[in-house]
Amino acid sequence: MILDCDPGHDDALALLLAAGDARVRLLGVTTVAGNQTLEKTTRNALKMLALAGVADVPVAAGCDRPLVGELTVAEDIHGSSGLDGPDLDVPVGEVEEVHAVELMRRLITGSAEPVTLIATGPLTNVALLLRTHPEVIPNVRRVVFMGGSTERGNTTPYGEFNIVTDPEAADIVLRAGLPTTMIGLNVTHQALATAEIIAEFRAMDTRLGTICAELMTFFASTYRREFGFEHPPVHDPIAVAAVLDPSLVRTVPAPVAVELNGTHTRGATVVDLHHRTGGPSNVDVAVGLDVDAFWRLLMTAVRHVPG
Amino acid sequence: MILDCDPGHDDALALLLAAGDARVRLLGVTTVAGNQTLEKTTRNALKMLALAGVADVPVAAGCDRPLVGELTVAEDIHGSSGLDGPDLDVPVGEVEEVHAVELMRRLITGSAEPVTLIATGPLTNVALLLRTHPEVIPNVRRVVFMGGSTERGNTTPYGEFNIVTDPEAADIVLRAGLPTTMIGLNVTHQALATAEIIAEFRAMDTRLGTICAELMTFFASTYRREFGFEHPPVHDPIAVAAVLDPSLVRTVPAPVAVELNGTHTRGATVVDLHHRTGGPSNVDVAVGLDVDAFWRLLMTAVRHVPG
Amino acid sequence: MILDCDPGHDDALALLLAAGDARVRLLGVTTVAGNQTLEKTTRNALKMLALAGVADVPVAAGCDRPLVGELTVAEDIHGSSGLDGPDLDVPVGEVEEVHAVELMRRLITGSAEPVTLIATGPLTNVALLLRTHPEVIPNVRRVVFMGGSTERGNTTPYGEFNIVTDPEAADIVLRAGLPTTMIGLNVTHQALATAEIIAEFRAMDTRLGTICAELMTFFASTYRREFGFEHPPVHDPIAVAAVLDPSLVRTVPAPVAVELNGTHTRGATVVDLHHRTGGPSNVDVAVGLDVDAFWRLLMTAVRHVPG
Amino acid sequence: MILDCDPGHDDALALLLAAGDARVRLLGVTTVAGNQTLEKTTRNALKMLALAGVADVPVAAGCDRPLVGELTVAEDIHGSSGLDGPDLDVPVGEVEEVHAVELMRRLITGSAEPVTLIATGPLTNVALLLRTHPEVIPNVRRVVFMGGSTERGNTTPYGEFNIVTDPEAADIVLRAGLPTTMIGLNVTHQALATAEIIAEFRAMDTRLGTICAELMTFFASTYRREFGFEHPPVHDPIAVAAVLDPSLVRTVPAPVAVELNGTHTRGATVVDLHHRTGGPSNVDVAVGLDVDAFWRLLMTAVRHVPG
Repeated sequence: MILDCDPGHDDALALLLAAGDARVRLLGVTTVAGNQTLEKTTRNALKMLALAGVADVPVAAGCDRPLVGELTVAEDIHGSSGLDGPDLDVPVGEVEEVHAVELMRRLITGSAEPVTLIATGPLTNVALLLRTHPEVIPNVRRVVFMGGSTERGNTTPYGEFNIVTDPEAADIVLRAGLPTTMIGLNVTHQALATAEIIAEFRAMDTRLGTICAELMTFFASTYRREFGFEHPPVHDPIAVAAVLDPSLVRTVPAPVAVELNGTHTRGATVVDLHHRTGGPSNVDVAVGLDVDAFWRLLMTAVRHVPG
Repeated sequence: MILDCDPGHDDALALLLAAGDARVRLLGVTTVAGNQTLEKTTRNALKMLALAGVADVPVAAGCDRPLVGELTVAEDIHGSSGLDGPDLDVPVGEVEEVHAVELMRRLITGSAEPVTLIATGPLTNVALLLRTHPEVIPNVRRVVFMGGSTERGNTTPYGEFNIVTDPEAADIVLRAGLPTTMIGLNVTHQALATAEIIAEFRAMDTRLGTICAELMTFFASTYRREFGFEHPPVHDPIAVAAVLDPSLVRTVPAPVAVELNGTHTRGATVVDLHHRTGGPSNVDVAVGLDVDAFWRLLMTAVRHVPG
Repeated sequence: MILDCDPGHDDALALLLAAGDARVRLLGVTTVAGNQTLEKTTRNALKMLALAGVADVPVAAGCDRPLVGELTVAEDIHGSSGLDGPDLDVPVGEVEEVHAVELMRRLITGSAEPVTLIATGPLTNVALLLRTHPEVIPNVRRVVFMGGSTERGNTTPYGEFNIVTDPEAADIVLRAGLPTTMIGLNVTHQALATAEIIAEFRAMDTRLGTICAELMTFFASTYRREFGFEHPPVHDPIAVAAVLDPSLVRTVPAPVAVELNGTHTRGATVVDLHHRTGGPSNVDVAVGLDVDAFWRLLMTAVRHVPG
Repeated sequence: MILDCDPGHDDALALLLAAGDARVRLLGVTTVAGNQTLEKTTRNALKMLALAGVADVPVAAGCDRPLVGELTVAEDIHGSSGLDGPDLDVPVGEVEEVHAVELMRRLITGSAEPVTLIATGPLTNVALLLRTHPEVIPNVRRVVFMGGSTERGNTTPYGEFNIVTDPEAADIVLRAGLPTTMIGLNVTHQALATAEIIAEFRAMDTRLGTICAELMTFFASTYRREFGFEHPPVHDPIAVAAVLDPSLVRTVPAPVAVELNGTHTRGATVVDLHHRTGGPSNVDVAVGLDVDAFWRLLMTAVRHVPG
């Protein structure tokens, strides 16, 4: 699998989960502007991989802004570094010289078996890949993305951050004809980093466990201030978890469109759960999560990364 | 108070509640196209008032279509008459010769104290009143409307029927600067006409009780077929109940906009519960309902209408 | 005929033309907010009628803002009074107590023969009339409006002031199924108040002639400053002229839609001259003007008004 | 310079002009879906280059559909081959193995001096280049594109084919901060392939001259049928001509936006010639053309291509 991300506190956990689970091989990591600028999300990805002791996974930087709109980073949630909280001073690896889109193309083209694309940031890179290199599509097994919602949003009343940031990219991905799974706020808001979860990270008594605890402590403080949440939802690792163990997430097929034109609803994922619009189902939409099993999976991975 | 409606099964209950509660005087009833054509909703309003034994409340027909869009009636939900189910053959009163907008203007202008406008259909008439006769605004105490949602919709994924039918009218009403209460699907979906509720109507052993039971039985069948609901929600009487006894409904002030431009979200009520957009709160949005107290209020009213 | 207007320098000439031509009876004048606020456009209409010596034509004030959008007056073009330039101090008549929509309804309903509606401002009043009182439609012979363009606009690159001010109203009027004539910028920009025209007004050596000359002199100064026009176009009287003498204007039937949703094009009149969209023709679109005959008609009227 | 095109009859002339003028070196040709499918436009480009006797210019195929919308080819104008009319049976060269975006990136990166990008089709490839590889921007001298209009469109009342086909791509290019020249219908409709022009092609008495005559004869027939034009406008070579001899085209700087959201105006180029919107000028907009000099330039090039 390939992980396209914009770390970001919850992307950081997604990286650890992707790196620490032995069942699926992480072919590469690509980064995109979103939670912070491309420069920062790329450095954050390199740091998390270094902390995880993963040295052989290529990392490439992708798009520094959305296809059409302007970039607005989520500094209110993720801080000025994009990964505020812990001390993450660590020697990092090198970023590839090629663009994220080109790295994805090479990895997919070169893979003997179909590749799963996991996207936990705005879908800019993935959309560019599909539009520039449609020849890779037959070798993509599935796109699993964290984004959207069947209910309310977080950035706007009906818009979730990743999709609002690049609605045109999401539209391209959702209409590409690929098997696609949407992990939206309706399920990610069930996976909350409670005090018990944070304590469990801390009790690992490892550098990574402590970092995870500190990341979640910072994340909790901004979610409390901005949204009044008692505990912060860890969105992104659920997308990885859904690939590692599909039984964790219950999905239903449904027609999903992205609103590109609304004055107040641009970037909303319009999920027709009742099939009232008559269109075909293009997305497997997550509607349920085995919360306990998810946390067991994540904790196990954080304990098992080499670093 | 004045009730502007488009009966409709749940409007029918709203009419009975408005007619059967002694605390507030029903000054007039106006009708609008929505659940069915204007001709049918007007006849249905006259029938329900006749069955309720209410003869002195003036009824005027209003707009036969939305301001801008085309009319699509909800025949799948309310049947070809708009009030399918029971036998409603009854001699009815006369409709006023003036337009609903003119009747509302006269009633409001002629009232010694401020008037509450309750709207349980598309807001076409109310919007035309506010735009054509802004001089009535100081004598309107509040607009309470059933419509919209803080969560998902029913006609489209994010759009509720009344607002989707005439988004421009809703926009006009919500931006009129009047105290306004929104009773959306997020609360009306809590007031379900269960088998017990239908049994309670039937046990009244009155013509009206039987009619209510039959209305809800028909309504249950279409909601089950179209939405997979086990029991149908009775939306409209909650707007009346919120006027008769404000303690039944918990509201929070919030900025609410109507999406006029979305390709997939036109007619969505965009409720900024977390005050993320920075705009002023223009609506008191219902977020909680005392379901039991609501049903007691409604049952009492149905028992007490003169007819 | 009925003239619905928002004077405005060119509306002022339209009023004189409507009042001074013996062939068609002016049943009433209604006013709308547009070039200036409703209060100002109403006073300006009363002044022009008083100066024209017309005392028996009823005048009613209508809408003080567009249906959906906010009002932005054209003070840069028409000055703070809406009719800057000449001294217009004159005792004026009384405005009717009823709303413009109600006056139009009465006049149309009471007319033995079909009435032509001429609109030279935003179409707010006319739209409200058609939506509130669709029963008048059979007794409306035709709607002739100044507004829109087959080419570029003036308020925005593709939007003309009257339509941009209230696009929803224009949409309602254009889709009402009535015979409709559009007098757009593509023809009104041919009728320029040149130095010769202004000299001809002045040479009448009457109070009205002088006033017309001064109105056009002021109008020329703002058009030069805002648009770089050498001579200002007199838009509105052409709509009246097209009723008085249809041979002055060459029209073609075409599908015309109003853009309600564009980010940059809201209010554009989309005229499908080549019938490429496949829709039915709903408007007779003016594409040619006999400029000389128009000016002769206007000059004759200004000379013949009683005042 | 690099020519990105979708031949197409007028693109074919643009290719000949680009290949036949000695002043500027044609570094590469890239193709895009537009007038016909990508497969056909690519084959047509190869054919025209072969007929022109140009063997050393690399050709790469690009995007087979727009960024967001669906592809609708202009078969009514260009026929089923995209280049209907003459017999174009000729051995053609090879297409590069890399994508158009990658070829453009390499050519621009490898060029010792800044490169001019000429685009005569939808701007899909150019937009992808700028978004995927923003590092090339400093070595792009200027983008000159045929598309849009300051007046009416051709595909829709206000929309020109290239921009309507991929409005998001045009938006990306116009907001990229690059020196940009727009050659719109307002000037291209002045360059008509009259009977004299066709006769001049034929009088060359060369294979290419005859082909040009036959291309224009076919083009004239479809323009007559679809638009009622007496003579067809040759849009695309004007973009090349404006690079070869900038004195041919008069431009003015203006703010230009692309309408992405309009119901009837999507893809309109909104050119604020009067600077009424207050935005900065981002495009040099062609407003005048030296028609005779343009034809002389084109005829000379067709005579001078090696083939």
